[in-house]
Amino acid sequence: MGLIVQKYGGSSVADAEGLKRVAARIVATKKAGNQVVVVVSAMGDTTDELIDLANQVTPLPNGRELDMLLTAGERISMALLAMAISNLGHEARSFTGSQAGVLTTSAHGKARIIDVKPSRISEAISEGAIAIVAGFQGINQDTKDVTTLGRGGSDTTAVALAAALEADVCEIYTDVDGVYSADPRVVPSAQKLKTVTYEEMLELAASGAKVLHLRCVEYARRYDLPIHVRSSFSNQEGTWVVKDHPEGDSDMEQAIIAGIAHDKSEAKVTIVGVPDRTGVAARIFQTIADADINIDMIVQNVSAAATGLTDISFTLPKSDGAETTAILNRIQGEVGFASLQYDDQIGKLSLVGAGMRSHPGVTATFFACLSEAGINIEMISTSEIRISIICRVEDLEKGVKAAHSAFDLDAEGEAVVYAGSGR
Amino acid sequence: MGLIVQKYGGSSVADAEGLKRVAARIVATKKAGNQVVVVVSAMGDTTDELIDLANQVTPLPNGRELDMLLTAGERISMALLAMAISNLGHEARSFTGSQAGVLTTSAHGKARIIDVKPSRISEAISEGAIAIVAGFQGINQDTKDVTTLGRGGSDTTAVALAAALEADVCEIYTDVDGVYSADPRVVPSAQKLKTVTYEEMLELAASGAKVLHLRCVEYARRYDLPIHVRSSFSNQEGTWVVKDHPEGDSDMEQAIIAGIAHDKSEAKVTIVGVPDRTGVAARIFQTIADADINIDMIVQNVSAAATGLTDISFTLPKSDGAETTAILNRIQGEVGFASLQYDDQIGKLSLVGAGMRSHPGVTATFFACLSEAGINIEMISTSEIRISIICRVEDLEKGVKAAHSAFDLDAEGEAVVYAGSGR
Repeated sequence: MGLIVQKYGGSSVADAEGLKRVAARIVATKKAGNQVVVVVSAMGDTTDELIDLANQVTPLPNGRELDMLLTAGERISMALLAMAISNLGHEARSFTGSQAGVLTTSAHGKARIIDVKPSRISEAISEGAIAIVAGFQGINQDTKDVTTLGRGGSDTTAVALAAALEADVCEIYTDVDGVYSADPRVVPSAQKLKTVTYEEMLELAASGAKVLHLRCVEYARRYDLPIHVRSSFSNQEGTWVVKDHPEGDSDMEQAIIAGIAHDKSEAKVTIVGVPDRTGVAARIFQTIADADINIDMIVQNVSAAATGLTDISFTLPKSDGAETTAILNRIQGEVGFASLQYDDQIGKLSLVGAGMRSHPGVTATFFACLSEAGINIEMISTSEIRISIICRVEDLEKGVKAAHSAFDLDAEGEAVVYAGSGR
Repeated sequence: MGLIVQKYGGSSVADAEGLKRVAARIVATKKAGNQVVVVVSAMGDTTDELIDLANQVTPLPNGRELDMLLTAGERISMALLAMAISNLGHEARSFTGSQAGVLTTSAHGKARIIDVKPSRISEAISEGAIAIVAGFQGINQDTKDVTTLGRGGSDTTAVALAAALEADVCEIYTDVDGVYSADPRVVPSAQKLKTVTYEEMLELAASGAKVLHLRCVEYARRYDLPIHVRSSFSNQEGTWVVKDHPEGDSDMEQAIIAGIAHDKSEAKVTIVGVPDRTGVAARIFQTIADADINIDMIVQNVSAAATGLTDISFTLPKSDGAETTAILNRIQGEVGFASLQYDDQIGKLSLVGAGMRSHPGVTATFFACLSEAGINIEMISTSEIRISIICRVEDLEKGVKAAHSAFDLDAEGEAVVYAGSGR
C-alpha cells in the first residue's frame, strides 16, 4: 500500500506482447492497493529509426527540432501502454513530459531537470487512474520548447517524478534482475546485491557499471528516495539502492566491497616533457575543459631534477581522443612540451564499497591480488569508498576475476566477510 | 509580400524526398518576401500504421489515448520538415497544435476548433522564422488533453490558423492542381476553375467533391479568408475559393454552373405503407437522428386516398445502412409501416452554381439532357444554388458527362456562357 513509480525501458515495451506483459504487471501493482505512476521509454528501436529519418533530411539536425522529433517515440509507447491497461479494465491516462510538469534547462539533447510540478499526475492518481508519463523529455522552463534529457533520461525522469510525488519507491525495470557484485558476463560467480548505498551506486556508475545512470542516482540521493532495480521478466526482488545498508547487517557482517566495476571506454594521453612550472598544468587542463571534454584520472610524475621537465598522463573517453590531441597539438608551442602519446588499449578496474572507510587493508589486498595475477598497475586513483587502477585492456577481465575472489565476493564462497581481517 | 499559410498533405511529405521538395517551395515563398506559416499532415501512411499498432494492443482504443498516439504522426513530419528547411539555411520552428493555440471541444477523434490563439506563431514569424504547425490536432480547452479533429482536420487547422493570424491567403497543396468543373477521371474535358465561391464550394463538398472538406470551407467563409487550392508538384495557379467571382467577370460571361459533383457513397431506404398521420414521419426521423445518423435527401409520396398510406424514401451513407434498417425494424410495430426496401445501387448527381439564382431555366436544361441520355430520375432535391438528383449508379457517370456538355463546360467549347439563354 503506497505510491509506487515504475520505470520500463524500451526493451520491455519493444512490441505489443511486451506492452501487454508490462500492462499486466502495472495492473497487479494497482490491484495490490497501490497508487501507480509509470514512466516509459520509446519502444525498442524507435529512437534510432527517428534519428535515421532525420539523417535522411539533413546531416546536422537542429537541436530543438531533433528533440521535437524524438519525443514522438515516448508519445507512441505511452499511449499504447495506456490502451493496453484500459484493455485490462483499469483506467490509465498518458502524459507528456510537459504535461507531467518536467521543467528543464534549455540544452537540447542533454537538458537537466530543474523542477517537477506534477499536479496533473497527482490529480490523475487521486482519481484512481494509473498515470503513464513519457520518460526522457521535458520542457524548457523559459521558452516552453520541448527538450530531451540525454542518456539515462528516462531513469532520471522516474526518480525526479517519484521525488516530487513523495513516492515510497521508484522501481526501475531493466533486462537484468539487479545490481551485481561484478558484471556476470565477466565473473559468472557474481552475486546480485540485496542493497547498495547511493554513494556506492554513484561510484559504480561513474566507474563503468551500466545498470543505472549517474544522474538518476544523484537525484535519488538528494531526495533520499529508495530505488528498486529489478527485472520486468520476473517477480524476484532485485537490488535496493538506499541511503545506508540495513542496520541488521552489523559491521561484522558488512561486506567491505560492494562491487567491482570495469570500463574499456577510456584512453590515456601522456604529455611528455612538460616544463615543471607553476601554471603550465592549469593552462593545459583549462584548454581541454574549454572544449567541454571531461577527463577522468590524472597522474603527474616527479620532475627530473636535471631537466626540470615532467610527464603528465590523463584518461578520458575514447570518443574525445581525437579532439583532445588536436587541441594539445595547437598549444604545443606555447606550453613547450616535447611530444604526445595516445594509448587506447587501457582498461579501468574499480573496487567500490562503503566499508573501505573502516578497513584500511583494502588497497594492500587489491594490489597483492593483481600482482599475483601478473597485472601491471599503470595509474591509480582513489576516493573515500573507491579504488581505481588503470591496466592493459587485455588484463582487465582477469583483474576483475582476481579481485572478486580476493574479496570473497564469489557466490560459492561466503557472501559476507571480514571485519579486522587486516586486508 | 504578405502573410501566407500553406498546408501540405501526407502524400506531399511521404518521404525524405517529398519533405525536401516541400521545404524548397516554402523557402521560395519566404524568399519572395512573405511571412510563412506551414501546416503539415502526418507522413504518408503513418496514421494507418499507428492505428495498426493500437489494434495490436486493444480492439477498442480509448479515445483520449488514440488521439495521443495519432498526434505523434504530425510531430514527426513537422520536426523533419523544420530540419529540411534549416538545411536550406532558413530558420524554422515546429509547433504542436497545443503550442500553436488550437483550442477544441472535448470530442476525441472528431473535435471541433473553438478558438485559435497563435501567439507563439506570431512571435516566431515576427522574428523572421518560418513556423511549422502540426495539422489535425489541438487541445481540449477545458482539460488540456490532446485532441484530433477527424477527417479534413489539417485543412481546417490551416484555415483556422490563417483566419486567426489574419493571413492574406491560405494555400492548400494537394495532389490535384485545383477544383475542376467535374471529376476529370469521369469527364476528361473537365476544366480547372479559376475561382469558385465559398457557397459553391460548400455545395460541391457536400455533394461528393473530395478536394476540400466541408468544415474547412465553412471556416473560410465565416472569416472571408481566400483559399488557394493548388498542386505541390507544379507552380501553376490553382483554384481560388473566395466570397464572390471577380467583378471583371460580368453577368454576361459568368458561368451559371460552376461544377458538377457526383457521389456513389449513399444508399436509399424506402419505408413502404406508412400511415399518413401527423407525427409519424417525425417519429421515424427522430429515432434515426437519435442514433447520430445523418440522412441526406427525403421524398414522401402523396398518399393513396383509398388506403391513407404513403411511402417515404430517404438517402444516407451506405456505412450507416445496416444500423438504420435495424432501428427501423425495431419501431415497425409502433409506427405500423408495411415493409422496408434497401437499395445501395444509387448515384447522386449535383449541379452547383451561384448563377442559378438568376437563371431559371437550369432545371429544365438539366432534366432534358438526362432524358436524352435515357437516365431516369428517382429523387430530386434543390437548394438556391444546387440541384441534385438520384439515379441508378450505373447511369451516374453518363449523367455527369451529359450535364457537363449540356452546360457547355467542356474545355474544347467556350468556357463561359449564357445570360438569358433561357435554359
